[in-house]
Amino acid sequence: MPFLSGTPPFRPENPVFAIVLGNTLLSTVPGVSGAGMSPEKTVLTPVLDSELIIHGAIRSRKWKPNTPTGCPTPAVITRAMMALLGMEPLFINAGLTTQPVIPCLDVYGEPGKDPRVGDAVARARELYARGEQVGRFLSRSGDLLLLGECVPGGTTTALCVLRGLGIPASVSSSFVNNPVALKEAICARVQERIRAEEAKDPIEIIRIGGDPMLAVAAGIAASFKGDTVLAGGTQMLAVAAVLRELGKKVPSVVTTVYVRDDPTAGFTATADMIGTHVYYVDPDFANIGHNGLSRYCVGEVKEGIGAGGAMFLARIMGRSEEEIRGALLTTVSGY
Amino acid sequence: MPFLSGTPPFRPENPVFAIVLGNTLLSTVPGVSGAGMSPEKTVLTPVLDSELIIHGAIRSRKWKPNTPTGCPTPAVITRAMMALLGMEPLFINAGLTTQPVIPCLDVYGEPGKDPRVGDAVARARELYARGEQVGRFLSRSGDLLLLGECVPGGTTTALCVLRGLGIPASVSSSFVNNPVALKEAICARVQERIRAEEAKDPIEIIRIGGDPMLAVAAGIAASFKGDTVLAGGTQMLAVAAVLRELGKKVPSVVTTVYVRDDPTAGFTATADMIGTHVYYVDPDFANIGHNGLSRYCVGEVKEGIGAGGAMFLARIMGRSEEEIRGALLTTVSGY
Repeated sequence: MPFLSGTPPFRPENPVFAIVLGNTLLSTVPGVSGAGMSPEKTVLTPVLDSELIIHGAIRSRKWKPNTPTGCPTPAVITRAMMALLGMEPLFINAGLTTQPVIPCLDVYGEPGKDPRVGDAVARARELYARGEQVGRFLSRSGDLLLLGECVPGGTTTALCVLRGLGIPASVSSSFVNNPVALKEAICARVQERIRAEEAKDPIEIIRIGGDPMLAVAAGIAASFKGDTVLAGGTQMLAVAAVLRELGKKVPSVVTTVYVRDDPTAGFTATADMIGTHVYYVDPDFANIGHNGLSRYCVGEVKEGIGAGGAMFLARIMGRSEEEIRGALLTTVSGY
Repeated sequence: MPFLSGTPPFRPENPVFAIVLGNTLLSTVPGVSGAGMSPEKTVLTPVLDSELIIHGAIRSRKWKPNTPTGCPTPAVITRAMMALLGMEPLFINAGLTTQPVIPCLDVYGEPGKDPRVGDAVARARELYARGEQVGRFLSRSGDLLLLGECVPGGTTTALCVLRGLGIPASVSSSFVNNPVALKEAICARVQERIRAEEAKDPIEIIRIGGDPMLAVAAGIAASFKGDTVLAGGTQMLAVAAVLRELGKKVPSVVTTVYVRDDPTAGFTATADMIGTHVYYVDPDFANIGHNGLSRYCVGEVKEGIGAGGAMFLARIMGRSEEEIRGALLTTVSGY
């Protein structure tokens, strides 16, 4: 496959790369998320990843946002592409358990709660409205919005929301062996709650079973005036599905081929059901000459914190495949 | 005097209006600040003002950010100008006692402490660096940065910093009768602490006796690549003085004639000592047909939360004096 699965119709002059950070307490349930050295530490990954992308190193804490097997965080990819483009992403704090160590556009939300036992995002409607305000501000800042996310455990909340919207989705995972049974059990409980409330409105479904990123990202995409591309896997499909259900324009999605090729995720089928166009990035990590990166090809990590979108952006801003792969290898080898 | 004291050399195509919010616990000392119905409530003014500017009304609390005599907050002026221009300002949270109800670019600082008894801004250097990062981001968002502030009690911390830098300033106040003796007593204590530490570096002086806005605003202005205009009175002179002392380019300042004409403030003399160019806005509130606004002419409030800068921006973006005064009267009469 070529580096990009297709050529987008837009030629941005001033792109904005924004990444929505959030937590769901589901990531602390053992087995749900691989985004961290232990279930308890997964909640720190958005803060550590954002520090890594901005400063190139994690100075605020002693551990790294790696997977339990030591696979590098996809933040390294995003960092490499931002450096290549001379850009910095704007981080948006949708609701975190810990305070970031870099400036964030903060909507003053809270971390998502466990949706099996009560509302996940009590203030979902307010967070959506604050997201709309962020989108209006960003409309003055650029002509293309690339919107990424970092929510450990977020594929499970995305599954809950997609199913709640009537989409028979399955979801990807940062684990090699996707903990499908655990996710399905959580999702089944959440669907019961959605049915009990007879909830149909997508923001109500986020309130019951989503996470704060989903509400904020949907609000931003709904009000941004230029072109919007959602950068991520199943979680961004959930955002696209929410927007479709709200009657808003459905943005394109960009992700890596490693998400597309996850046999448990059924990514392309879900995207087709939602009716969103997907750009796939194939950085050919198998042949890049780095063990950690080649693990992406056997299914670990796959995507995250806008990594696929960052490579997409570098390409459409005119960087060659060789430049992109060279920058990735140099950056990743430095960690 | 004409509406603007001079014509700026720049013609912005995409201006950014950012307002740095902060607290100093000095505002809760009775008599220091008139920005609120009582000393305890002054700390809420940045949050209430920012809500008013974005939403046009304060819904989150029952009281208003008026002065004890009921003079309207200058936020109404900023609101009117933003509406006239079809803009929204970006609020930057430098360190507040309470959580904002609108999205803010948050540098995760803390409110300034009472500088008579210990360091006012313990993390001043870190906040300056985070301000620099915000400035780099904003450089991609626009070609002119208008940087305002809202810090109740901030004229007193500005006085401490200006004097600490060796500038024999006096300061303006939102009270009709500027509590000069109280401010001087506070300032004298702080100068003792600065001398005891033999502090010369401006960021160290902010640490000892300033407030978080001063550190963050200086960082932003230091790294913004386009034209920067500091929108405010004595507090923005302190930011300009810090930048000069750091060897950075000293931005222009814009404020109202009501600050310039405060006999206790000596504004133009201080600006001349710092070597910053000042644009003065004269909205002629005496003849605008509104009692609350005409009080500005007898010295109450005078300026705040970027009000002077907002009128300046409307004018340089091509709005006529008639349009500006009409929008002010309509908006203020609605409260």
